[in-house]
Amino acid sequence: MHRAAVKKVILEGVLDANDALAQANREELDRAGTYVVNLMSSPGAGKTALLERTLERLRGKLRLGVLEGDVQTTLDADRLARFHVPLVQVNTDPGFGGECHLDANMVRSGLSELPLRDIDVLVIENVGNLVCPAEFKVGEDVRAMVYSITEGEEKPLKYPLMFRSASLVLVNKMDLLEHLDFDIEQFLANLDAVNPGVPRILTSARTGQGVEEWCSWLEQRLPAQRRA
Amino acid sequence: MHRAAVKKVILEGVLDANDALAQANREELDRAGTYVVNLMSSPGAGKTALLERTLERLRGKLRLGVLEGDVQTTLDADRLARFHVPLVQVNTDPGFGGECHLDANMVRSGLSELPLRDIDVLVIENVGNLVCPAEFKVGEDVRAMVYSITEGEEKPLKYPLMFRSASLVLVNKMDLLEHLDFDIEQFLANLDAVNPGVPRILTSARTGQGVEEWCSWLEQRLPAQRRA
Repeated sequence: MHRAAVKKVILEGVLDANDALAQANREELDRAGTYVVNLMSSPGAGKTALLERTLERLRGKLRLGVLEGDVQTTLDADRLARFHVPLVQVNTDPGFGGECHLDANMVRSGLSELPLRDIDVLVIENVGNLVCPAEFKVGEDVRAMVYSITEGEEKPLKYPLMFRSASLVLVNKMDLLEHLDFDIEQFLANLDAVNPGVPRILTSARTGQGVEEWCSWLEQRLPAQRRA
Repeated sequence: MHRAAVKKVILEGVLDANDALAQANREELDRAGTYVVNLMSSPGAGKTALLERTLERLRGKLRLGVLEGDVQTTLDADRLARFHVPLVQVNTDPGFGGECHLDANMVRSGLSELPLRDIDVLVIENVGNLVCPAEFKVGEDVRAMVYSITEGEEKPLKYPLMFRSASLVLVNKMDLLEHLDFDIEQFLANLDAVNPGVPRILTSARTGQGVEEWCSWLEQRLPAQRRA
């Protein structure tokens, strides 16, 4: 019990320090007028594929920027480079065999590489993980998550913090629905059990289903005075 | 930099303490003659579904036991209860908003609830996560991972520690191959890039593909003197 208590104190200290840095990020982003979406999911749920569709569709309509978080590689940033939007890749591997989430300090290092005043909405693509990314604020305005229907119905109950902290859930890979034993009504009931009424959009990065609705949601994030 | 260095020292301390407890687990398991497989994957890759198939097939052939790790709920243990094997659920949620992995201390608490001398092979189903479970030894003899082909080709490059630490990779959800834009040759090349020649079995918990081969692999884990 004593060991557990000591560990808890250390981790609370880490989170307090993180919150202070997240607040500093927040203030910098506010000064630049940049709205930030922290986009989270399991590995392989389709965040990058949805971003490809998003960048295609919003070209010329909204000045998007992307901060890519990954343990290693620049593969995701490489995929998005063809859209010529402000883009930075942050790798978490210098810490601890690879950190499983972005924290406010890592995001801070990425922000310094981005022309924030030229970005209306910055999407932070977090490390693929349903646990720790939800525990670390990075200075975002809002959290959205991508959920792949291949992951089963029960994950909202098993990973409640993540699902509870999301303001929007993109229920992705809908093109596979007919090939899966996936009960979408049960999934949505489980989602409502942990985050009642949370907005959700059924999407497929492959067919484009729901991408327009997601892009409208992003456009509405733009501060009202800049939409006018 | 100083903050990062302090954090690294704390985390190395956590890992050192964990290694000592993992070694204690190892010794207890050796005394009981129980072989332990640490089974890891992303959320929703199909670990529990494969275990259902495994418990069906090995009934009466091998005395299996299961330690289920999840942030919250006993859903997975509930699914496996019908097989009437020694089974314990460990929840990681008392720590830090939910720990994203099992550590040696959590497994220790689970082991104390299991009749180890009646278990030939204990499968530890870790929390769904491609990062931290690979960093925490729990006293296992071997690590195996389940990879769902819905997660894309590039994950071995993005999460190399996990793929590198596995002695067997179950490439799962093969029944979906024809419905995905998934290049399995590219995936296997990426796997070989981080863990050259690692044994792999193509599986589908849904159709049963590869389950017999996986069960044979498990049977071969039994110490030779007990197989005789």
